[in-house]
Amino acid sequence: MPSILEGIKEPGQLKALSLSELETLAAELRERIIETCAANGGHLAPSLGVVELTIALHRVFDSPKDKIVWDVGHQAYAHKLLTGRNERFGTLRTLGGISGFPKRAESPHDCFDVGHSSTSISAGVGFAVARDLKGERNKVLTVIGDGSMTGGLALEGLNHAGELNKDLVVILNDNEMSISENVGALSNLLSRTITSEYVHRAKKDLEAFLEGLPMFGKSVLKIAKRAEESLKTLFTPGMLFEAFGFEYIGPIDGHDIGKLVETLENVKRFDDAVLIHVLTKKGKGYPAAEANPSLFHGVGPFDVQTGKVHKGKGGPASYTGVFGEALKRLAQDNEKIVAITAAMPDGTGLTPFAKEFPARFFDVGIAEQHAVTFAAGLAAEGFRPVVALYSSFLQRGFDQLCHDVCLQELPVVFAIDRAGVVGNDGPTHHGVFDLSYLRQLPGLTVMAPKDENELQHMFFTAFSLDGPSAVRYPRGGGLGVPMDQILEPLPVGKGELVREGKDGAILAVGTMVHPAQQAAAALALEGLDLAVMNVRFVKPLDRDLILSLAATRFLVTAEENVLQGGFGTSILELLEECGVTGVRVIRLGYPDSFVEQGEQAELKAAYGLDAAGIARSIREARGQSPQELVLEPADRPDGADLSSRP
Amino acid sequence: MPSILEGIKEPGQLKALSLSELETLAAELRERIIETCAANGGHLAPSLGVVELTIALHRVFDSPKDKIVWDVGHQAYAHKLLTGRNERFGTLRTLGGISGFPKRAESPHDCFDVGHSSTSISAGVGFAVARDLKGERNKVLTVIGDGSMTGGLALEGLNHAGELNKDLVVILNDNEMSISENVGALSNLLSRTITSEYVHRAKKDLEAFLEGLPMFGKSVLKIAKRAEESLKTLFTPGMLFEAFGFEYIGPIDGHDIGKLVETLENVKRFDDAVLIHVLTKKGKGYPAAEANPSLFHGVGPFDVQTGKVHKGKGGPASYTGVFGEALKRLAQDNEKIVAITAAMPDGTGLTPFAKEFPARFFDVGIAEQHAVTFAAGLAAEGFRPVVALYSSFLQRGFDQLCHDVCLQELPVVFAIDRAGVVGNDGPTHHGVFDLSYLRQLPGLTVMAPKDENELQHMFFTAFSLDGPSAVRYPRGGGLGVPMDQILEPLPVGKGELVREGKDGAILAVGTMVHPAQQAAAALALEGLDLAVMNVRFVKPLDRDLILSLAATRFLVTAEENVLQGGFGTSILELLEECGVTGVRVIRLGYPDSFVEQGEQAELKAAYGLDAAGIARSIREARGQSPQELVLEPADRPDGADLSSRP
Repeated sequence: MPSILEGIKEPGQLKALSLSELETLAAELRERIIETCAANGGHLAPSLGVVELTIALHRVFDSPKDKIVWDVGHQAYAHKLLTGRNERFGTLRTLGGISGFPKRAESPHDCFDVGHSSTSISAGVGFAVARDLKGERNKVLTVIGDGSMTGGLALEGLNHAGELNKDLVVILNDNEMSISENVGALSNLLSRTITSEYVHRAKKDLEAFLEGLPMFGKSVLKIAKRAEESLKTLFTPGMLFEAFGFEYIGPIDGHDIGKLVETLENVKRFDDAVLIHVLTKKGKGYPAAEANPSLFHGVGPFDVQTGKVHKGKGGPASYTGVFGEALKRLAQDNEKIVAITAAMPDGTGLTPFAKEFPARFFDVGIAEQHAVTFAAGLAAEGFRPVVALYSSFLQRGFDQLCHDVCLQELPVVFAIDRAGVVGNDGPTHHGVFDLSYLRQLPGLTVMAPKDENELQHMFFTAFSLDGPSAVRYPRGGGLGVPMDQILEPLPVGKGELVREGKDGAILAVGTMVHPAQQAAAALALEGLDLAVMNVRFVKPLDRDLILSLAATRFLVTAEENVLQGGFGTSILELLEECGVTGVRVIRLGYPDSFVEQGEQAELKAAYGLDAAGIARSIREARGQSPQELVLEPADRPDGADLSSRP
Repeated sequence: MPSILEGIKEPGQLKALSLSELETLAAELRERIIETCAANGGHLAPSLGVVELTIALHRVFDSPKDKIVWDVGHQAYAHKLLTGRNERFGTLRTLGGISGFPKRAESPHDCFDVGHSSTSISAGVGFAVARDLKGERNKVLTVIGDGSMTGGLALEGLNHAGELNKDLVVILNDNEMSISENVGALSNLLSRTITSEYVHRAKKDLEAFLEGLPMFGKSVLKIAKRAEESLKTLFTPGMLFEAFGFEYIGPIDGHDIGKLVETLENVKRFDDAVLIHVLTKKGKGYPAAEANPSLFHGVGPFDVQTGKVHKGKGGPASYTGVFGEALKRLAQDNEKIVAITAAMPDGTGLTPFAKEFPARFFDVGIAEQHAVTFAAGLAAEGFRPVVALYSSFLQRGFDQLCHDVCLQELPVVFAIDRAGVVGNDGPTHHGVFDLSYLRQLPGLTVMAPKDENELQHMFFTAFSLDGPSAVRYPRGGGLGVPMDQILEPLPVGKGELVREGKDGAILAVGTMVHPAQQAAAALALEGLDLAVMNVRFVKPLDRDLILSLAATRFLVTAEENVLQGGFGTSILELLEECGVTGVRVIRLGYPDSFVEQGEQAELKAAYGLDAAGIARSIREARGQSPQELVLEPADRPDGADLSSRP
């Protein structure tokens, strides 16, 4: 029997299917999602949770005329499969393949690119306002998880949407967790553990009211009890969203296609801001994922039958894990150390710390801005907070890092994980801007370790500083180097010369040190004798060592960061500040464009940031003589020459 | 009679004063604040609004043991006067004087540096957690305006605070406006214009409940009416904060010292998260400010008697005003242009646009993240949004700018006002990081005009582009140049040679063009013949023109931005990319430290960014021969030399 899914070329076809066919389709979608994630890895649990919701949305509404905005977008696999991407779905998250997130360039059904959380309501308000200004008629539907709802951006969006009261449907996909467990008052509200003083007072008010009625006498208490029950239903999650000006509907079962279709059909007729509260189960339909939704949130390749995630080759410990262990050790000796994460206790390696020091651990939910300013408050009172975030997510806290931490010179430590390319999650998740945006902030010490052993010394160093600091390190396994048992502070602003050489030097940051050494070894066989510096401190720079290496008149910088304003640039700045000219500098890093998805190693190779690429760039550079300036001094009129690069 | 204020050396003295003495003190504080702001300019209206609240806080609590965290901090003048800074208060906001915002370095009573909005709850949670971890006993009180409450950071803070339910007092200073009029659903809620569906449904529920009671018969309606009234009291602003897990108290009169003291004394005994809703009047006690709180929010020097703000010398139109007028003209011809601001319609010059095109104007409140993503949504649907923000506030939307705009290549225009030093508001408000953080974003066109006439052409250009763009320009008046009536697009990526010269070139960005020309003219008299380039496009660079100027082998870059990663750095990058060596480059800009408060001209002079400073730096550079490298190739062991710069 041919599958229903294979016959779906565009989502309008869902309108012709019966409820039982839609249920069959749900099963087929799950199978396809599971088999693809088992092969490629991916955001399995979130996508399994919204299969029925996705079917119902496409059944009731008319994408792309109606806009479906997926928050974060890691739950959009069923949406992709129903919008013409079933055949190519096997390329999910691979280089040149289908993105793991909605992507406008990929399909007209993907109306907004995503990757970071909490953007959907704001974008949806934009779509709704645009529609009304154009005088068009279509629905705008945003699907946002309960975890994403705690992000400040989502709450800003709710506030504006509630005021405008446009025709906008916010679907709260409540699976009681963001990536691991959800946190925050909102979460309590959604799970209705609210013990509100408010209910209490309302009950009292009603009792008073009822007592005032002449005919009740002794049955007052009984009635008050019933009144209380009646009132409790008022203090549902709806309270919050009604406060923001939304009409609240729900909660409804997110795995009941019939009920979802019925609700959405009703909502189709409304023309103001509505929030539908849908209850779903993360990982729904795949027992291993239901049992461990955090593991299967974003998972590597696994065995479908057993649910066992394929291990690597038993490789070295991850940087993340080494950070977590080092932090735990440091915290044993320093009770002022506290740790903060934004919905990423596992991802950032803080779980062991959290288990040992639960009172000193804070998961603030998806709220990077708050994470940073909260840490600043703790630091102002003498604590030594570490804020553990992914590099690209720290972009959300840039202003807070600048003003609340650096301007106040507060000793907050930033553990910046997933720096450099992260692989298949693609451009929204690569951490390739941090050296540029961190380096411009006064007073911030910025470190990057060459291996996992140095990582632990860097955190020791970071906690010994009087001011703010950041350690940035990559996703994935370390180099398998021996781990020192005794942690020591590194001399601040001092690099490490890991190889001597007289013909020039490679200044390598973090993950680039090891390939730089390999490149230097290869080039040595070709007669080019290059020193290699482990930069260690991107800020402050080791001016003495760098200037001494500059005496070779040939410097190569290598970093997993964009070339604009990054580490290599800081070397150019240093030479200019010192009035040094005549040094050839070659900067290696990511170019001025967003880096696509692909395996980490693939991407590094594609951008020439592996050993072979570094050696190749150096060979090419040595083959050229520095370009001689041939232009005459400027004498062109303003803007007269339009022939060159736009 | 000696004033009470003069006798107050530390806030503990307030405990000995009678209510009538406290009221006299309030009047004295107002007088001092008004006279100082009249002389120095300042945030008059916000500070006048909280005089009684400040007195009550210091009367009831024990700063600095108890922590008073002021959100934004522009309302903290009375706090400064009561905490030992009365004598120095005349230096408010001047170079080397008292800051216009709380500053830890200034007083132990200032527990957290501020300037940007919505940080106080997050910092307060940090203080409360720190206190509990240390096992200490003190109160933490945050004072936050209703405008600041709409910022995502504040809402993130509320969510975390509500969950932790620490002993924390949030005082909502509700003056029904942020800087001008407040917006958003929260605002509606606070002003109780909530027309809620919720009330309606609750009433129905209650009616049904009452109808079920056998003995009511025809009096049901009357009772239902009373029930509705009773229920309405439930839908106070408290609803939202109760939903977040706070106990709600209020609203109370924020100008009644007795009532404030009584309420705070009660709250002192609580030990969980409480929100006190205080109603205040912005500008209270100074009729001119009460009548025009937006003008007197942050005001320049004025006449106390008449309330008339001192005009400058009838100088040229401000950049802000020129932007506003240009936008209005452009919008007349292009109905796709829409404008967004974050609580700054006047400050960003959008008020004329808003009056002419109310349906195309959006003030989203203090919510920069949402402003950017909302704009991205509009742009995705074919509109041409301009997001008008101050440079330092755009830092709040950095991630959204990166992912929601640049990654999607959406044609959002950023009108970045207050770029460069802004003057007396100091380090939190100077816009000296934008060129660095904008320049690293792929696909963003970045412009800076040399004068107000060029500004209008730049916006014409920006709206003609297919991708995102930013125009950054300073606070204050233009140069008084003639204004073109016909707007034309500038050739993208092309600079303008405003002076020819054979001995070198000054590459000047925006406000630096005019002083660069003056410096070049002065140096010409000394025999040094320098070209001057109006850079216009910081990104993409005019490679051809710059390389042709580089043939002089002497380039000076001048920008109102930090030197780390800024425009001058991009010239170093360009030369490196082109393999050009042997060019001496001198970069002028702000150093790697936060720039203090002071008049704009004072600060530019202090940092050598006026004509005299530029000329001086060039003379010094020409007097030196480039430093010769004297160090030997690197041969030092790892980290062995600890003697140099830490």
